[in-house]
Amino acid sequence: MSNEMMPLSILATGGTIEKIYDEFEGSLHNRDTIVKNKILKRLRLPYTDITVRQIMSKDSLFMNDADREFILNSIKDHEQSKFPIVVLHGTDTMDLTSKFCFENYPEVQVAVVFTGSMKPLGFDDSDAYQNVIEAIFAAKILIPGYYVTFHGKLYKVPNLRKNKLRGTFEEIE
Amino acid sequence: MSNEMMPLSILATGGTIEKIYDEFEGSLHNRDTIVKNKILKRLRLPYTDITVRQIMSKDSLFMNDADREFILNSIKDHEQSKFPIVVLHGTDTMDLTSKFCFENYPEVQVAVVFTGSMKPLGFDDSDAYQNVIEAIFAAKILIPGYYVTFHGKLYKVPNLRKNKLRGTFEEIE
Amino acid sequence: MSNEMMPLSILATGGTIEKIYDEFEGSLHNRDTIVKNKILKRLRLPYTDITVRQIMSKDSLFMNDADREFILNSIKDHEQSKFPIVVLHGTDTMDLTSKFCFENYPEVQVAVVFTGSMKPLGFDDSDAYQNVIEAIFAAKILIPGYYVTFHGKLYKVPNLRKNKLRGTFEEIE
Amino acid sequence: MSNEMMPLSILATGGTIEKIYDEFEGSLHNRDTIVKNKILKRLRLPYTDITVRQIMSKDSLFMNDADREFILNSIKDHEQSKFPIVVLHGTDTMDLTSKFCFENYPEVQVAVVFTGSMKPLGFDDSDAYQNVIEAIFAAKILIPGYYVTFHGKLYKVPNLRKNKLRGTFEEIE
Repeated sequence: MSNEMMPLSILATGGTIEKIYDEFEGSLHNRDTIVKNKILKRLRLPYTDITVRQIMSKDSLFMNDADREFILNSIKDHEQSKFPIVVLHGTDTMDLTSKFCFENYPEVQVAVVFTGSMKPLGFDDSDAYQNVIEAIFAAKILIPGYYVTFHGKLYKVPNLRKNKLRGTFEEIE
Repeated sequence: MSNEMMPLSILATGGTIEKIYDEFEGSLHNRDTIVKNKILKRLRLPYTDITVRQIMSKDSLFMNDADREFILNSIKDHEQSKFPIVVLHGTDTMDLTSKFCFENYPEVQVAVVFTGSMKPLGFDDSDAYQNVIEAIFAAKILIPGYYVTFHGKLYKVPNLRKNKLRGTFEEIE
Repeated sequence: MSNEMMPLSILATGGTIEKIYDEFEGSLHNRDTIVKNKILKRLRLPYTDITVRQIMSKDSLFMNDADREFILNSIKDHEQSKFPIVVLHGTDTMDLTSKFCFENYPEVQVAVVFTGSMKPLGFDDSDAYQNVIEAIFAAKILIPGYYVTFHGKLYKVPNLRKNKLRGTFEEIE
Repeated sequence: MSNEMMPLSILATGGTIEKIYDEFEGSLHNRDTIVKNKILKRLRLPYTDITVRQIMSKDSLFMNDADREFILNSIKDHEQSKFPIVVLHGTDTMDLTSKFCFENYPEVQVAVVFTGSMKPLGFDDSDAYQNVIEAIFAAKILIPGYYVTFHGKLYKVPNLRKNKLRGTFEEIE
């Protein structure tokens, strides 16, 4: 029987999901994570103790292997606690980053779930809210390994790629 | 590789989650399911083909074993398609109905996930949206059996009961 | 030229607009005003200094002349500040209460605007948000007197009545 | 007594208020007016018959006098119907365009109310919803002339300018 709080870490790296509208410049930027204020406040998670850590703030189009190394090292740091991890990441290279982790550190001991969104969090029809709910839920029940959750679907890394035309991901063999 | 649509049935039975405010009487009633209009329209589920079927419209406090028998028969009907099922149900006796199904038909061949909400769907801070997202996601990835998902937590039927004081569920041995 | 803050008082009396859903009882009640948290936080009113005062918490169907006398006395109290007043009131007898004020104290020296809503504030399709925006705006620009604003229309008291069938107000001669 | 529908025209010219997020490019553009879908559907205006006409789709920073001439001509066209007009306009040069109309055609025979927003309509904390409600309400009750409504305040053209620092307008002598 387990009604205790389960810790879970969210590592925010930037990407569309965290873009904020700057009223004075009239443009969208990656700023400090808005996940806490925009999503977590609205969710009911009485048995989950979530920590959000902003480890980077980068459009995933501009990520290189040094950035991916840095993300993997953050995963390793948090893995020691034995608790699940959600990584918020831009969709454009989410397949590459998750594959990078899978290839360089396949022996990960916790569930690591990547997600992001097509539309930034502040929009009233953003898919971020749904995707984060799914990622948190998945991270809590899945066995150790790397996953992507997106639009109601679970992908096993590295069997996925972005389908730009449809604005979502798809499975590959 | 599977990028095909996966069918999924939602069986709506009433309960808080479907309560609608009647502007002319100033009160809340169980009406035809509002799940389609209030939730499904807002979700992105490019690989999930959801059918909503309103099989009952009852506050779960007033459900009896005949009602539970009827719900179980609906589950059996849909089970033949081999696709997962989400049951929307009032929280007050969700533990009883799911236990009834488990005891009378333990050999179910699909995942059956019960969920509901503390606050009706139309409220801007309703937990229905989150709970339905979790239930759909869970139903798609879990092995056959009966489950409850609620507030970010997965319960295996019949190991749960409502915690009225905290306004959520909890595990029991 | 006036870029100073203009004070404005909101007198909350109950009614549908302030109904709150009680998750534990599953019903709607008039509670302490939720106007501050649900509406004012979401509005941008850089030149308006709003004070909310909960003077009553009553379904307007159950208001009697003693209640109306009490509301009028509250209006007189606030009138001394020379600043506009918005009265939140149930729609069922808003015409009666505003007429009572008009007949018993026609010489009011500030704009007094009554409004309410058909659907409580917490609902995502509530008309409360719109009606309160209109009432605040109207109170700031109108000459002294009693008014009702509702669904984009301005009514001069006592020339109005509720149209129950259409769920709004209408003008009478 | 007037319970008839009152026609009202909304002339959309672009600006922040109509910016739409392009999920595929990840940027904001002025597209066809989203006023109808995002605002009017959510409002209750049982006595107002609104027509939206997209006459331009331009960031107001890039408007020149030819654009302003075009806007004024559209106002003249609609003025013949004798019904009020709301002009949706970028905030950066709203003062200039409204002043241009005032100076070149002071004898306008209907109320013309300009408004816009600091944050685009699709954002959940956009000020567009509030500003449009105020502009429609104002246009219906004001005497002929040019006005700006913004953040709960009514400005008489040309006595206003944008206050960029505070993200709103202010009165000038």
